[in-house]
Amino acid sequence: MSEFVFPDKAKNSLPNLIREVINRGAGREDFVSFALGNPAAEAIPVKEILEAAAEVFAGDPMTILQYGPLVGYDKLREWIIDRLVNVKHFPKEGQSVILLSGSAQGLGLAPRTLCSENDEVYTDEFAFTNALNAIKNAGCRLVGIPMDEYGMIPEELEKAAMSGKGKYVYLIPNFHNPTGMTIPLERRKELYQVARKCGLLIYEDDPYGEIRFKGEHIPAFKSFDEDGRVIYAGSFSKTLSAGLRVGYLYGSQKLLQTMQLVKNSMDGQCSLMNQIIVEKSLERLDFEEYLKGVCRIYGEKCQDMLDALHEYCHPEVKIHEPEGGMFIWITMPDSVDCLAMYEEAIKIGVGIVRSQAFAANSENPGHSFRLNYTFQPREKMLEGVKRLGKLTWDILG
Amino acid sequence: MSEFVFPDKAKNSLPNLIREVINRGAGREDFVSFALGNPAAEAIPVKEILEAAAEVFAGDPMTILQYGPLVGYDKLREWIIDRLVNVKHFPKEGQSVILLSGSAQGLGLAPRTLCSENDEVYTDEFAFTNALNAIKNAGCRLVGIPMDEYGMIPEELEKAAMSGKGKYVYLIPNFHNPTGMTIPLERRKELYQVARKCGLLIYEDDPYGEIRFKGEHIPAFKSFDEDGRVIYAGSFSKTLSAGLRVGYLYGSQKLLQTMQLVKNSMDGQCSLMNQIIVEKSLERLDFEEYLKGVCRIYGEKCQDMLDALHEYCHPEVKIHEPEGGMFIWITMPDSVDCLAMYEEAIKIGVGIVRSQAFAANSENPGHSFRLNYTFQPREKMLEGVKRLGKLTWDILG
Repeated sequence: MSEFVFPDKAKNSLPNLIREVINRGAGREDFVSFALGNPAAEAIPVKEILEAAAEVFAGDPMTILQYGPLVGYDKLREWIIDRLVNVKHFPKEGQSVILLSGSAQGLGLAPRTLCSENDEVYTDEFAFTNALNAIKNAGCRLVGIPMDEYGMIPEELEKAAMSGKGKYVYLIPNFHNPTGMTIPLERRKELYQVARKCGLLIYEDDPYGEIRFKGEHIPAFKSFDEDGRVIYAGSFSKTLSAGLRVGYLYGSQKLLQTMQLVKNSMDGQCSLMNQIIVEKSLERLDFEEYLKGVCRIYGEKCQDMLDALHEYCHPEVKIHEPEGGMFIWITMPDSVDCLAMYEEAIKIGVGIVRSQAFAANSENPGHSFRLNYTFQPREKMLEGVKRLGKLTWDILG
Repeated sequence: MSEFVFPDKAKNSLPNLIREVINRGAGREDFVSFALGNPAAEAIPVKEILEAAAEVFAGDPMTILQYGPLVGYDKLREWIIDRLVNVKHFPKEGQSVILLSGSAQGLGLAPRTLCSENDEVYTDEFAFTNALNAIKNAGCRLVGIPMDEYGMIPEELEKAAMSGKGKYVYLIPNFHNPTGMTIPLERRKELYQVARKCGLLIYEDDPYGEIRFKGEHIPAFKSFDEDGRVIYAGSFSKTLSAGLRVGYLYGSQKLLQTMQLVKNSMDGQCSLMNQIIVEKSLERLDFEEYLKGVCRIYGEKCQDMLDALHEYCHPEVKIHEPEGGMFIWITMPDSVDCLAMYEEAIKIGVGIVRSQAFAANSENPGHSFRLNYTFQPREKMLEGVKRLGKLTWDILG
């Protein structure tokens, strides 16, 4: 069966440069990886989750061991709607929720539901690799839109959308992966107007939105979505636990009804057990108070790494200071050969992800690196940044 | 945003006639539904699963609460390979496993990975609704192939595949959903030869294969798959628990490697927690002995319903006697208006699913009904069959 030919779309993924770092660091005890986007272990409410799980397993086992409802666990749906409406001021009328196996599932569902093959999807020129792959693997045309310091440039989006082939814009407005940037309110409104003018939906991916440790909250696109064109994707991976695999979409019933039907035929249903554990964990937490603690942990870890970067790196290295999330984006002068620098870093035992991993346009791989600051313990982080800093002096010195 | 137009494929689902039965029976206490395909509660090893879960939650919580490996839990992968190779005599060399959120996830993955839009997929003229919807929602052309008493007719498959647009054949060789049929070995080999001749893959969906309570085991397509063209889909939903949402694909590394990569961008990863609970439940069971018990329960429930159908139904009703699985397929004479009969059944409080729910070709809705025998307790089943039997006498006199 050597002759089976996959469609191009199935082979059309970006190189997995995060995996590459992990592979190259494997077995090296002194290796310090800033590659993975794993949440901080100390910010997972282990006690509450274990209690919730114990309660679930002490109840009627058939609730979790038989097939459950396709739309998932009612009480979790209600919790999500309540919070989005009351805390984030999202519209309620005519809106609905789809529960997902992690918000990652929404990345796969959107292009496969909203688009035909060869339809265009617009993303930042650097964006979350899985989101880009999901669009490419669905056979859609991925169009990376230039960004400035405030995120995607509205005029550039409008220019691209003049093709008439676009279906939606993919955005991570808060603490963007990989750049850490947050889109200011004014820019959000401009982008919304372009989407309206061009008949585009907006997929607002917000896995990090709760993790703000600096600056002021900025209203989500969904909060001023008069047209029902915004599909908001939320996650419990960074606030409760990534391993439970529970996320959701929130958007107009009209859109979500069709997406739910297609989802039903894509994986049947999500695990009710996991959804109930999440809901019962939430019941045990004062969520808003609890989030403050998570943000404090992330904020401290971020500041520690920023301090170290500023102390040890050459001043020509541009260090972005995020107001939340999990990543610091450092940019090298154009003169630097970033592939060679990456190779040197690996040699001295530091794993960093080069911007090419996130490049929507392969001809523009960028001059930056993504560093995760949540996962490594402080001492290991410091050791890694020292080595990296020395490397920047060796190169730019 | 009333103007957003979904692609046709997203709206292209079969009518959900199972859901219709559930809705129409809702709130009627005397209603007896044979609609759902839920496993028998008494065949779920609750004790072992609860013990396994307790062990999982007593271990290192970070194992299950952080992101896990994209390919899932090693030990479960090994268990699956061992069993398929040693008990089912599948080839081992060059093969691999993809762990899924229920084998249902494979139904969505296959057409979206193996096909471009408008490629053809061949199925039985009646088949599992979700599988048909998955193919249609992926934008593929669903082609229903005529069946006889031994399943899909090889000559008809070959005729259809002459279009040159086909990518794979979808089959449920054991205790087919909805017809309960099992394809004999000779027919399997003939279908394999047609697939070889026409360059088609075979997607062998086997969620019920372990539930044989009568007759001899028939080797799976995968067991004689010299070419590596068979992708085998297995499930723990009917042997352990449907609620845990763990299933898998087994096939050639070459094919599965690409499918795994696309899956990674479709939902990130499956819940490691659920996979570990499944594996630890399996450790606690003598699986082959345990399966005998499950088969005994299903066999008795099937025989009870067959006896009742034969006792109460008009002799012109053709009753298929399955050798395993979960469904009995009854066929009415051509003269009967099956929609009217279904409506009458609902009126007298019996929920049955008409064959139209499973019809790959909408112009041939068939003259049959699917009855599940696993879910209802005996007394309720008897009451339902009595009512249904009386109805057949009223109609056929």
